[in-house]
Amino acid sequence: MLYIDALQSSNWDREILEEIRKGGIDAVHVTCALWESARDTLTTLGRWHRRIRENSDIVLLASKAADIKHAAETGRTAVVLGLQGSSPIEDELDLIEVFYLLGVRFMQLTYNNQSLIGGSCYEEHDSGLSRFGRQVIAQMNRVGMLVDLSHVGERTSLEAISISDRPVTITHSNPLSSFMHARNKSDPVLKELAANGGVLGCTIYPPLIGGNNVTLMSWIEIVARTVDLIGVEHVGIGTDASRKWEDHHLQWVRLGRWAHDPSLGRTVSGSDSWPIWPAWFQTPADFPNIVDGLRKYGFSEPEMAAILGGNWMRIFSNGFGPQIAGA
Amino acid sequence: MLYIDALQSSNWDREILEEIRKGGIDAVHVTCALWESARDTLTTLGRWHRRIRENSDIVLLASKAADIKHAAETGRTAVVLGLQGSSPIEDELDLIEVFYLLGVRFMQLTYNNQSLIGGSCYEEHDSGLSRFGRQVIAQMNRVGMLVDLSHVGERTSLEAISISDRPVTITHSNPLSSFMHARNKSDPVLKELAANGGVLGCTIYPPLIGGNNVTLMSWIEIVARTVDLIGVEHVGIGTDASRKWEDHHLQWVRLGRWAHDPSLGRTVSGSDSWPIWPAWFQTPADFPNIVDGLRKYGFSEPEMAAILGGNWMRIFSNGFGPQIAGA
Repeated sequence: MLYIDALQSSNWDREILEEIRKGGIDAVHVTCALWESARDTLTTLGRWHRRIRENSDIVLLASKAADIKHAAETGRTAVVLGLQGSSPIEDELDLIEVFYLLGVRFMQLTYNNQSLIGGSCYEEHDSGLSRFGRQVIAQMNRVGMLVDLSHVGERTSLEAISISDRPVTITHSNPLSSFMHARNKSDPVLKELAANGGVLGCTIYPPLIGGNNVTLMSWIEIVARTVDLIGVEHVGIGTDASRKWEDHHLQWVRLGRWAHDPSLGRTVSGSDSWPIWPAWFQTPADFPNIVDGLRKYGFSEPEMAAILGGNWMRIFSNGFGPQIAGA
Repeated sequence: MLYIDALQSSNWDREILEEIRKGGIDAVHVTCALWESARDTLTTLGRWHRRIRENSDIVLLASKAADIKHAAETGRTAVVLGLQGSSPIEDELDLIEVFYLLGVRFMQLTYNNQSLIGGSCYEEHDSGLSRFGRQVIAQMNRVGMLVDLSHVGERTSLEAISISDRPVTITHSNPLSSFMHARNKSDPVLKELAANGGVLGCTIYPPLIGGNNVTLMSWIEIVARTVDLIGVEHVGIGTDASRKWEDHHLQWVRLGRWAHDPSLGRTVSGSDSWPIWPAWFQTPADFPNIVDGLRKYGFSEPEMAAILGGNWMRIFSNGFGPQIAGA
């Protein structure tokens, strides 16, 4: 059984990679950009390639799904590089292939603000996909970079699902019906996502589940309701583990370069500190608690295999790499 | 017999690629940057990946030497991407691997001016390799990006040859003894290059051979003298064909962003127009004239095979791709 975490966004160092190994996680999608420019993202990606090389005893780069199987077979974790916004491609269609060549396999269409592609879940009015946005999705489909809608607005999400030739993803959100929050997803979005063959990664990010006092089994209940809503083959895990950031980094996460007033950026929680995580998921090393919870809840082994990694493997197998004509 | 042109620097379009095909050239190293920043080079590389895709009936990307054989077998030309200066990596060591991942297989240590790496052939005083420069060569050796010394100063060239673990190249210059010009190379540089296993590409760029009236057989004489000097296994072709540029582009070629006074940039010729090429090499379609000239001069078929492509194939086979420990 493969374990895949479809989003972590940490202040990376070897200790965090060791936590991931301790958690038995075979593949992790890591965030390489929030608001960064193309140039700044080169620095981050260059560092990731070096980090993977310098820690090749415990990690490897996931360029294709088979790399994840190879990681599992060699007791390592496959790192899937991704962007949590479209700022790295700026206004340039060719940069999708450029970042693909650098290993990027996920791009979220917007981070917290309207992008050149479409509207975010925090905008009052979601424009839907822009003219550029439609070109971007076609290129992402072509090269094999997965569309991520986690922070994307409702209308843009529905339009993206509708025009994408390949399944799209929500790497780290929960159903709105499980907890009311702008970052969680409406039934229509989830149902279209599933109809398109996509996968949602249920997240543990405390503001999206009701805080750190939510028990493991209450969170498993969210997963179970999501399964009821869209089917077990469309549900995965995307913890959003955010390790080792100082509070001052929240300024960048929230405000980037787009605002000065901190209140404008407090979209996820009212606090100026990073959220406190539940006792049962303090670090990625606690991933086995999720496994235990699913089993205790009564999921069968095949259902667990699908949720814990199998569904993401299907998405990665079909989604990474050039589109096959007619497929 | 494979034909390889180790440098062309044109204003690329399909017509130029067709000239290259007409010339029977199996691989061509193309210039993707002179003075450009990292960001600007992404645009150029993105366009090249698109151009290769859009012209996949006649070209393919050369990531490894075997791609050149595949190109020859399928009647296409393999395109080797390269940088004629170190400006794209700026001051960042990790960007060597970043550009390698984007397909770049050659980097010249300097263009016409001192770079962060070392001195150019036009500087009054060549510093030799900088501290950064030594790190850069080690990284280029590691990832498999060839060092090009064509525009590099004497001292920096000798130091680069000395510290490089892998053979280095001069893609487009001639021996100084064949024509006195700052861009041509001294006997000591050529001999150290050969002793290190490297290859020099003899160029047809008119200012470096004595103008456009030089006959084919006089130019072949330059090649023959180079063979006498460093051995037939160290001599190749690097025409420096520069097709379809308007004269105003010379401003960028010469002055980049570093000067305003045009006289400072007139390093190669006193003219403000592109040089006129010899009648026997008007475009890359004339490459067979080189073949005929070598044969007429009396080179044997194995010698011709080495000069026309075999030596570059050896360099590419050993030089592209990660360094093998102990090799």
